[in-house]
Amino acid sequence: MTQVNNLLANLPDASTAEVFEALASAKGVEIERIVSHGQSSPEIGWYEQDRNEWVMVLRGAARIDFDSADSSELGKSAELREGDSLNIPAGCRHRVGWTTPDFPTVWLAVHYPPDQDPFDEGF
Amino acid sequence: MTQVNNLLANLPDASTAEVFEALASAKGVEIERIVSHGQSSPEIGWYEQDRNEWVMVLRGAARIDFDSADSSELGKSAELREGDSLNIPAGCRHRVGWTTPDFPTVWLAVHYPPDQDPFDEGF
Repeated sequence: MTQVNNLLANLPDASTAEVFEALASAKGVEIERIVSHGQSSPEIGWYEQDRNEWVMVLRGAARIDFDSADSSELGKSAELREGDSLNIPAGCRHRVGWTTPDFPTVWLAVHYPPDQDPFDEGF
Repeated sequence: MTQVNNLLANLPDASTAEVFEALASAKGVEIERIVSHGQSSPEIGWYEQDRNEWVMVLRGAARIDFDSADSSELGKSAELREGDSLNIPAGCRHRVGWTTPDFPTVWLAVHYPPDQDPFDEGF
């Protein structure tokens, strides 16, 4: 945790499944690197999370889709290229619609508690 | 907050002073972009923060120095290049020793509460 860690080096092989690695965490907060390689969320379900999630594409390209029911602010989908970031509020139903199959996509994700909820409950 | 925001584009002019921009925040957590251009922390003081700070260099190069009194784990300084990240625990005295003068250095910083402190106090 207290050493320099290059997030663009030594990428794990994500050809079979996405690879999640915790970088730092504390009560209710989690910083993680995600490496995708052509994966998308399974068709069967949406992510609907208790916490806010701030994501950034460090390398690669991706598309996040939002459930039309609550996409008024975010639109139907967001295309993310290198350097692009996006804040996904808690409860906002979303899924990874696409990541480039040509090379790994490296994400940085920060999960953090919503303001409304008492921090001591549920996390 | 709910729109795609490219952190490598439209860089502010940081030639006079570092530029801090909040990207997302909630109770006790703050995600920010910092753009430096040759700056270092003033000689007169160290940063000593109540919260943990996770930093990453998105573009550029920098060096973070640690106070020798509590640098046992981190060493005397850490050189950060593109993609490098570092977790600076709450209370760890540090300063930016150098950033490259040749072009802007773009940082991502996540301030988050230490595990030990009750979340409701002090943040």
